[in-house]
Amino acid sequence: MARKPRSVDLTQVSEWENGAVSHKQDYLAAEEPLEIRIGKDPLSVTMRTPGHDLELAAGFLLTEGLVQRRAQIVALEADEGTSEQNRGNVVQATLAPESAPDFEKMRRHFFAASSCGICGKASIDSVRARTLRPPNPGFRFDPEVLVRLPEVLRASQAVFGRTGGLHAAGLFDTAGELLVLREDIGRHNAVDKVIGWALLEERVPLSDSILLVSGRGGFEIVQKAIVAGLPVVASVSAPSSLAVQLARELGQTLIGFLRGRRFVVYAGVERIAKI
Amino acid sequence: MARKPRSVDLTQVSEWENGAVSHKQDYLAAEEPLEIRIGKDPLSVTMRTPGHDLELAAGFLLTEGLVQRRAQIVALEADEGTSEQNRGNVVQATLAPESAPDFEKMRRHFFAASSCGICGKASIDSVRARTLRPPNPGFRFDPEVLVRLPEVLRASQAVFGRTGGLHAAGLFDTAGELLVLREDIGRHNAVDKVIGWALLEERVPLSDSILLVSGRGGFEIVQKAIVAGLPVVASVSAPSSLAVQLARELGQTLIGFLRGRRFVVYAGVERIAKI
Repeated sequence: MARKPRSVDLTQVSEWENGAVSHKQDYLAAEEPLEIRIGKDPLSVTMRTPGHDLELAAGFLLTEGLVQRRAQIVALEADEGTSEQNRGNVVQATLAPESAPDFEKMRRHFFAASSCGICGKASIDSVRARTLRPPNPGFRFDPEVLVRLPEVLRASQAVFGRTGGLHAAGLFDTAGELLVLREDIGRHNAVDKVIGWALLEERVPLSDSILLVSGRGGFEIVQKAIVAGLPVVASVSAPSSLAVQLARELGQTLIGFLRGRRFVVYAGVERIAKI
Repeated sequence: MARKPRSVDLTQVSEWENGAVSHKQDYLAAEEPLEIRIGKDPLSVTMRTPGHDLELAAGFLLTEGLVQRRAQIVALEADEGTSEQNRGNVVQATLAPESAPDFEKMRRHFFAASSCGICGKASIDSVRARTLRPPNPGFRFDPEVLVRLPEVLRASQAVFGRTGGLHAAGLFDTAGELLVLREDIGRHNAVDKVIGWALLEERVPLSDSILLVSGRGGFEIVQKAIVAGLPVVASVSAPSSLAVQLARELGQTLIGFLRGRRFVVYAGVERIAKI
């Protein structure tokens, strides 16, 4: 029987509370490996929550620098996989001839066995080697709109309420309208999914949008957002030092601790209207 | 001037609160790439919070399957790096001849540009291909001890209080004594640091210890813990479906939502004493 990956699994658990044990059913956020292939060549494997896999693959291709435009992705399809284990967990991309990666070169230069935002890059210097362009310098936003966004994100999260285990990323316009929200067990995947959605909708560069992520604003989130042309990244938690450094270098507005009627601006304070 | 990476950076930020803007100094959790080399060959780059880098490298070598014993690591040293950018961000390992990886084989099989727990593996099937042994089946623990651990972990976190941005992993004995605590911007790095500490102290396999992680218990945390022989993994948040599946397959006890006087047992309930 073909096994179709789902976003949420139901399972039997035991609960201990104050010395008493009970047994019940509980929802779990699903986590499965997704293999992205270029033609027949495996490009990467990422642990993700199934759902919106084509968007995830499209976003990954963009934010990792394999394509710059929608038109470079000729085809993108879910592949049946070759075994019971990977059924439903493969996306195959066909790129325009000029975008097809040099796999031999990648095999020489990109190789790692890590679990990080930039793994696959075999030397530290390559982390900063990508050519990144500053996002829209003229973009401005109203702080009164910004402080409303976390509540919109939370209210729209479909899976989190049931499992408590998912990160969310949302794209908003300047009026605070939610354009798209995606959830994933990996924060970077949630971001790739919303950026992939935008790429497939031909909305990239996202010069007039705000990206809000649950959790922390790390280096890779800022890097992916800059590739997508996003002028503002906000998170409800702390950014890292390298995320702040990159946002400052590239002229992106980076906001952390967006909670209640308060937030901290780590970079690009000039984009806040009326300050 | 040589730049020495630090765990915490101080930076100038702007705070918006209820319409008023103030400027202040704020602490940030540091995030820098660490390159792990075998001899002169780059093995991986991981984004980590500087500090305990040798332990991180040792833990990574163990949990990624490059070594099985302390003795296979002949030397482990911080390398000066080759540029201003990577100074202090390189660890060089010398492995015993029988452990030296076949880089040509790895270059063919391990290649990816992802940001996940298992990236570097070019096919999905390889995720489950590692030979993992079930941890100590005879280990038992007292739930009254377990419920005290999160408070011990929080009280011992040095950096989190200042930055709000770090994950912690702690090893405890059956009496609830904290053996070691490490913090990192990446949850998997915090786990590799505590496991690396244990490997360097020749305490692996950790057959009588409990691993507690802040945040979520994902697949890679369970996988790393199983490699280190840990019979119990607990987290304060939700595990993923794949983490639960792996823990059940391998006979590890997996606990989530460890908060107050309550926790949920997702696998290995038999290790709880007096149930």
